[in-house]
Amino acid sequence: MTADADPLAARLIARLRSAGLTLATSESLTGGLIGAALTSVPGASEVYLGGAIAYATAMKTALSGVDPDVLERYGAVSSETVTAMATGIRLITGADWAVAVSGVAGPTEQEGHPPGTVWIGIADERSSRAQRCAFTGDRAAVRSQTVAGALGMLLTGLQDR
Amino acid sequence: MTADADPLAARLIARLRSAGLTLATSESLTGGLIGAALTSVPGASEVYLGGAIAYATAMKTALSGVDPDVLERYGAVSSETVTAMATGIRLITGADWAVAVSGVAGPTEQEGHPPGTVWIGIADERSSRAQRCAFTGDRAAVRSQTVAGALGMLLTGLQDR
Repeated sequence: MTADADPLAARLIARLRSAGLTLATSESLTGGLIGAALTSVPGASEVYLGGAIAYATAMKTALSGVDPDVLERYGAVSSETVTAMATGIRLITGADWAVAVSGVAGPTEQEGHPPGTVWIGIADERSSRAQRCAFTGDRAAVRSQTVAGALGMLLTGLQDR
Repeated sequence: MTADADPLAARLIARLRSAGLTLATSESLTGGLIGAALTSVPGASEVYLGGAIAYATAMKTALSGVDPDVLERYGAVSSETVTAMATGIRLITGADWAVAVSGVAGPTEQEGHPPGTVWIGIADERSSRAQRCAFTGDRAAVRSQTVAGALGMLLTGLQDR
């Protein structure tokens, strides 16, 4: 691990490695920051397969297999969409675990949700679940809190197995 | 644009917006850093659709449509693979332009290539091309130079249209 490796990501990579599990990601508002944090850790390739940057709404279907009806019915910033993103990218990549994020980085609101509204979803072979976060601060702060929230939710999920 | 937005990415987003063009990415060694740089710019969603984090070799096929024969024949770090990644993600996303990167971040070599060996490929509706870079420094330095190289190659490509 170099000085530049993300410490939370390094903990998660070590944890996945010792459990023999692989991981995939599907990111909207973070645009690749979660993947970048994971791959800042040397040896990440043993457990992190890759994922989708599903930034535009249509990309959630094209790159993570989200049913367009789910997007139409619940919106891009919803429990249902983020759960479908996590489930979808897990199936596409064949990873054991997947995490997905969708929300409003700001500065403007989206679909009636204020900046800082973020859904994080995780999926493993048994189930999927999502949590809603209300982060504060500017665009960079919301994105950075989303990365930490996603890595933290995975670490908790792995502990609960 | 906030103080945290990547200046080179902001120039590229502005240039794409004025040309009315959309962009997609497929990243291996950078693991999402190019997407993260692009989406650090408020309003990026007008031109940046998203893309793939094709980190594990098999993900270059699963997430960017690279023919497994190309990977087998030329390796993951090659002109042929990076060109196929750019062409593939452009077709999957429907973007006007695409950029792809594959290379060795380090600290260890890969497929006989030393750390710092990086291929960058771009594709538009008319053609695709790739360039080989030999970057120096540690893992973080190689990744950061790859991001700048990819954004720079896109800016040059847009000027040459």
